[in-house]
Formats: sequence, C-alpha cells, structure tokens
Amino acid sequence: MRELKVDLGERSYPIYIGSGLLETAGDYVQKHGISIKSPLLVITDEKVAPHYLDTLLTSLETAGYAVASAVVPSGETSKSLKVYEEMMTSAIEAKLDRSSAILALGGGVVGDLAGFVAATYMRGIKFVQIPTTILAHDSSVGGKVAINHPLAKNMIGAFHQPELVLYDVDTLLTLPSREVSAGLAEMVKHGLIRDADFAHWCEENADQLLALDKDALAYGLLKGCAIKAEIVSQDEQENGIRAILNLGHTIGHAIEAIAGYGEFLHGEAISIGMVGSAKLGVMRGADASLHEDTKRMLKAIGLPTSLPEHLSTEDIMSAMMHDKKFREGHMIFIIPTAIGEVTIAKDVRAEDVRLVLEELKKEV
Amino acid sequence: MRELKVDLGERSYPIYIGSGLLETAGDYVQKHGISIKSPLLVITDEKVAPHYLDTLLTSLETAGYAVASAVVPSGETSKSLKVYEEMMTSAIEAKLDRSSAILALGGGVVGDLAGFVAATYMRGIKFVQIPTTILAHDSSVGGKVAINHPLAKNMIGAFHQPELVLYDVDTLLTLPSREVSAGLAEMVKHGLIRDADFAHWCEENADQLLALDKDALAYGLLKGCAIKAEIVSQDEQENGIRAILNLGHTIGHAIEAIAGYGEFLHGEAISIGMVGSAKLGVMRGADASLHEDTKRMLKAIGLPTSLPEHLSTEDIMSAMMHDKKFREGHMIFIIPTAIGEVTIAKDVRAEDVRLVLEELKKEV
Ligand SMILES: NC(=O)c1ccc[n+]([C@@H]2O[C@H](COP(=O)([O-])OP(=O)(O)OC[C@H]3O[C@@H](n4cnc5c(N)ncnc54)[C@H](O)[C@@H]3O)[C@@H](O)[C@H]2O)c1
Ligand SMILES: NC(=O)c1ccc[n+]([C@@H]2O[C@H](COP(=O)([O-])OP(=O)(O)OC[C@H]3O[C@@H](n4cnc5c(N)ncnc54)[C@H](O)[C@@H]3O)[C@@H](O)[C@H]2O)c1
Ligand SMILES: [Zn+2]
Ligand SMILES: [Zn+2]
Repeated sequence: MRELKVDLGERSYPIYIGSGLLETAGDYVQKHGISIKSPLLVITDEKVAPHYLDTLLTSLETAGYAVASAVVPSGETSKSLKVYEEMMTSAIEAKLDRSSAILALGGGVVGDLAGFVAATYMRGIKFVQIPTTILAHDSSVGGKVAINHPLAKNMIGAFHQPELVLYDVDTLLTLPSREVSAGLAEMVKHGLIRDADFAHWCEENADQLLALDKDALAYGLLKGCAIKAEIVSQDEQENGIRAILNLGHTIGHAIEAIAGYGEFLHGEAISIGMVGSAKLGVMRGADASLHEDTKRMLKAIGLPTSLPEHLSTEDIMSAMMHDKKFREGHMIFIIPTAIGEVTIAKDVRAEDVRLVLEELKKEV
Repeated sequence: MRELKVDLGERSYPIYIGSGLLETAGDYVQKHGISIKSPLLVITDEKVAPHYLDTLLTSLETAGYAVASAVVPSGETSKSLKVYEEMMTSAIEAKLDRSSAILALGGGVVGDLAGFVAATYMRGIKFVQIPTTILAHDSSVGGKVAINHPLAKNMIGAFHQPELVLYDVDTLLTLPSREVSAGLAEMVKHGLIRDADFAHWCEENADQLLALDKDALAYGLLKGCAIKAEIVSQDEQENGIRAILNLGHTIGHAIEAIAGYGEFLHGEAISIGMVGSAKLGVMRGADASLHEDTKRMLKAIGLPTSLPEHLSTEDIMSAMMHDKKFREGHMIFIIPTAIGEVTIAKDVRAEDVRLVLEELKKEV
C-alpha cells in the first residue's frame, strides 16, 4: 500500500493506493474521523455497483456505520441537475446530518457528482473518494467538483476537498480497455507538464499499464496524483499555476463539444489536444522532437493522435472561443517547451491554432 | 452613511448603510475590485424590480459595466432548483466569466438564491448584496446562502461571503408593514442574544422603526449587522457559538413548517419562538421578568407572541425532531438566561418543550 499526502493546510488529506483496500474501507473511514454516529451515503453508478458496492457496504457496516446507497446511470448524463436533485433526496431520506459523509464509488462522473452533493448538502459535509477508473486519479485530487449545465460542462460546481481518497487498484481490472487508455492519457499529461522522467517511464511501461499490472498501476497512479497534488497545493483555487493541468484540454474540450456523443472519450480528446499543443510549442521555438516524442508516448498507450477529417476546423475554433478558459477574451494556451515543461501563453494567435488543427488532420 | 467591517480574515468585507446608495452603486462596486472588463448579473424579484432595478442598472452602466438582469417571482418559491437552473442559464447567456460578479437586489430570498448561484457558477464567482428588506440585515451577514429542497428548507447551499453589502435604507420605504415588523424581529433577536442595551433601544424606538425613520433604521440595522458580524467572525462555519443566532428558530421553523402557506412570516414565527425560549429560560431558573420583557419588546414592534390554538402541539414537536439542528439526536436549544444573554443547552427535555408550546397557546 502506498500513501501520499495532498498538502492543503487545514484541508490536507491522504491518498491511499493499493490492493485490497475496498474490503477494509470501513477502518480507513473511521480512522479519518468520520463519526460512527452519523449515517453515510455511498453514491455509485450502475456499472460499478454490481462489482464493488456490496464489498464496500459490508466493510462500512462491519465497522459500525449505518449506510445508504444510491446508484446513478453510467456516464456523463448523470452529472445533471436532475440527478443532483435525486441525490439530495437520497441524502435527506438517509437522514444525513452535518457530521455525515458522502462516499463516491466510481469514476470521475460519480466523483464530481457526489462531491458536489457533499459540497452543498447542508452547506457542505464530508466527502470520501473511492475511485474506480484510472482517469479518476486526476479527478480525485484537487477538490474540483461539478455538474453540467445543458449549455456548458462543469459549469455548476465548487471546490470541496475529500477527507481521504481510497484507491483500490483491484477495482481497475473490470475497466473496459478503451477507458484504460483514456485514463492513462491524464497520467501521461502529468508527466508532460512536470516530470520528463515520469513521462518516459509511462512510455516504457505502457504494456504493463495497459495489462493492468498492479505494481505498475500503483506506481503510475501515485506519481500522477503526486504531480497533480503538488500543483494544486500551490494554487488551490486555480488563480495561476494550476492552469497548466489543462495541457491539451482547450483543444480537447472543443473536440468533445463538437464530436458526436461517444465518438471520443475525454482522455482521447485531450490526447489529440496534447499533440496539438506540442505542435504549437514547436511553432513557438521548441525542438521538433517535442512533437514526435509526445505523439509516440501517447500512441504507446493506445491513444489517438490525429484529428478525423469530418470534424470542422471552424466548429472547433468557435467551440474554443466559448471555453471558459478564455478569461476576459484573451486566448490562453498551455504550451509545452520540452517534455516535462510547459508555459502559460496568453497571446496565442487564432491563426496559429487554426493551422495546428489543420495539421492535426494530416498526422499519421 | 455608516460603515461596518465584517471581520473574516481574507474574506472580510464592508457593509455600507445609508440613504442614496443605490444611485452610486456603480462606484462602490468598482471601488471594491470588481473588474469593469467582465459582465455583471443582477438578480432581483418582481416586486423589487419595478421600484429599484432601473436605478441600479443605470448606476452600474454609468460606471462602465456591462450588466444583465434576471427577475424571479416574489417569495420563497424562488429558492428552488428550478429557478436556480434558470439563473445559471441567465449567467451563462450573459457570458459571466470567473472575474464577473452577481448582485442580489432584494430581500433574503433573492440574497440566498443569488448567493448560491454565485457560490457555484464556475465553482464560485464574486457576489454583492444589495438588501431591500429589514430581514436581510440578518441574511446579508454571514455568508450563508441556500435554496430549498422539496423535503427541507435551506438544505442545499454553501458558505459564500459577499465582496460588499450596500444597504440603501431608502429602498425600505416600499416594504409592506407586515414585512417591516417581521424583519425587526431579527433585529430584536440580535439584541436579545448579545446586547441588552440594544434590545431596550429597539423597544424605545419601536415607533420610529415602524415608521421607517431613516436614522433609526440605519442605526438599528448597523447594530444588528454588527452583532451578527461579531458572532460570525468567531465561527464562520457554524461549528459552535454561531448557533446562538438561532434563538427562537427551533420552534419558529417548526411553526413555519406546519402552518398553512402564508400564515406566518419567518419573523413572526421566530417571535413566537423567542417567547417560547424565554419561557424555557424561566423554567430553567432565569428571572420571571425575562419572559415578560421579551414579550413586551416583541409586541412593541407589532409581532405575534402567542401560538394559535389550531396548530397542533404534536405536529410542532415532530417537525422539530426533523430540524437539522438536532445534531446526532440531541435536543439542542438556544435558551436566554437574561435579556442580552443566551446559552446553548444540549439537554433540553421534550416534555418541557411540549409544556412551553401548550403555554404559548394561552399567552395574551
Ligand atoms: N474534478 C476534476 O478535477 C476532474 C478531472 C478530470 C475529469 N473530471 C471528470 O471526470 C469525468 C470522467 O471520468 P471517468 O473517465 O472516470 O468517467 P466515468 O466515471 O463515466 O467512468 C467511465 C466509464 O467506466 C465505467 N466504470 C467506472 N469504473 C469502472 C470499473 N471499475 N469497472 C467497470 N466499469 C467502470 C463507468 O460506469 C463509465 O461507463 C468527466 O465528467 C470529467 O469532467 C473531473
Ligand atoms: N442567509 C441567511 O443567513 C438568512 C438569514 C435569515 C433569513 N434568510 C432567508 O431569507 C428569506 C426571507 O427574507 P425576506 O424576509 O427578506 O424575504 P423576501 O426576499 O421574500 O422579501 C419579502 C417580501 O418583500 C418583497 N420586497 C422585498 N423588498 C421590497 C421592497 N423594498 N419594497 C417592496 N417589497 C419588497 C419581496 O418581493 C417579498 O414579497 C428566507 O428565505 C430565509 O430563509 C437567510
Ligand atoms: Zn482532463
Ligand atoms: Zn431567522
């Protein structure tokens, strides 16, 4: 079992990563000061529940907790105000009080939804993350929780840090392989922005990671979480440096926004976005190898690195203009300068981005 | 113009109270660091808008802001998830960004709703309170913002402090007289919990307050805000002392919950609750004058002090058992020990409360 502390002053919390953690979740929860006198609510989704919900409930009940659970549909549509209201109803019916905690058992969708419920139920109660996807190594660090508005993703949310994160790598074995690669995209991203050695390690260990080797996963998740945690510690509310975590996301979000539902997973879209950002980096003076290395690393974990022809460049451009990261009208991009290093550029020209999108369609 | 600082470290903010502030709102907003480059959204209600919205918009536009506005129905029903979603839509359509602010022009309903929108739009943007009711001197201090769930009031919310509060006493002139008295109930409450002199001042100046004399109002609102601000500064997240602000609210909320819609305003219900709490105080050893004084002070400002026969004691009792203030099953009450002094009792017996409710029906 590996342990990592996310350093946020009073709101600091530990991340435990390892095998067999779900069976002992009750002890962990109790050890982290969650009152046995108050009921708990586990929020999970319909794909995760059949595999892991009973194990978790049994562990919590054995530790002495009264626990209710709520199962939401799988996928992004559960990050809606409708499901949010249903979860509030479940919390009230389960008689959660101000000392209660909400536990998220699932991927980023469940984590974001349950976290926002915890952030706003009775003006905020405790929250525990039990991630079951690789992508969730990203979403479980940093305290960003949110649901979607019909007009914009993640538009309704809060900053709400968990009491602890319990990452049981055994749960990853049932993850569909496309979700595995998509989740690893964020892991590679963490290497690309801050740690060249780790980026190279991901490439070298791509086969083990894709085969869900527990040691490789535990190390990779720990490193990924640690890099994110370090950045978040410096800038909890995203007023500055935290923005570098958005490498590949400006283009990636635009691709997600205009592509047909289900065409791209988030990790796949940002993979293309990271290749695009590397291209922008080269255009702005970085060594040409930056682009080739980035592309090779992402390919190694089975991710797309080119843009399908049928996606209109102009549609992507205008989707980007709506992106909330264009603070006060400037075009802000996270641009790599070398593997493991990025810069926040506030003066990126729309023509250059358009050119990069065109070139992304020609990548092989 | 009077000024008060709510002391909350980094989240400290000023309250300005006086005449003619609405006309100069744009300058105040600008002086408090709200970017002229980002659009603003004013949220108000249909009774307030015809009187004051244009004045506010003109002042903001004159100062150089782009401003959108959204008008919600008057009354508690606007604190719903449905209206919340509509406000999010308005905010997105007005292209609010992370540097934007939301301004609440109205009473506690608009303040709580707009505050919760500001707390959760893009994970939190700036917020300005422009209260137009007397009750809002209470709701505009302390950062509690919330909407209602069909099963429970104020169940969905956050702590979100405003950048500033602009309290223009001129706007109070159009307030219906029943709302005036109900708002003054919270003012008297602030005296009863912390400041005997101020409680007596409220009684002595009851006629001026009811006649909406600007000097009396400005002084009373300032004092009321100051008492609340001092308590909130000691306990921003309501983990301890802040609970004393709930004097009269345990019984009051239960009355509101079971009485027919519109039978009692919040201030009226807590007035009865405060008389009940004074009775409990006397039962627990306070001087009998405590009850008589409390009652006389509340009557002076036109508030009810007895419980109508048709409200069932048992219904009130069971409504109280659901109240979220009964943390972990104990019956917690704020009990006065003298005018200007209260204690937090955690061991109040249900029989005693039942007896007090019965006696409240016999009050004259
Ligand atoms: N809060 C943050 O900082 C942050 C960061 C990145 C992404 N996100 C959010 O995370 C979400 C994406 O997360 P995700 O990719 O984990 O999505 P997800 O939660 O939808 O999970 C992906 C799919 O895998 C299924 N699944 C999950 N765990 C499984 C398991 N162990 N076995 C079998 N199936 C399983 C789910 O039912 C779903 O169908 C997005 O909504 C995104 O906005 C948030
Ligand atoms: N956040 C807090 O700390 C806190 C504290 C106390 C109360 N509250 C909340 O405040 C709400 C009650 O506040 P309220 O009593 O101000 O209610 P309100 O906002 O509904 O206003 C009362 C009525 O007066 C009207 N009105 C408002 N200003 C007016 C004006 N200047 N002229 C004419 N009409 C006017 C409104 O349209 C409404 O009909 C409740 O929802 C309660 O939960 C919050
Ligand atoms: Zn991402
Ligand atoms: Zn009140």
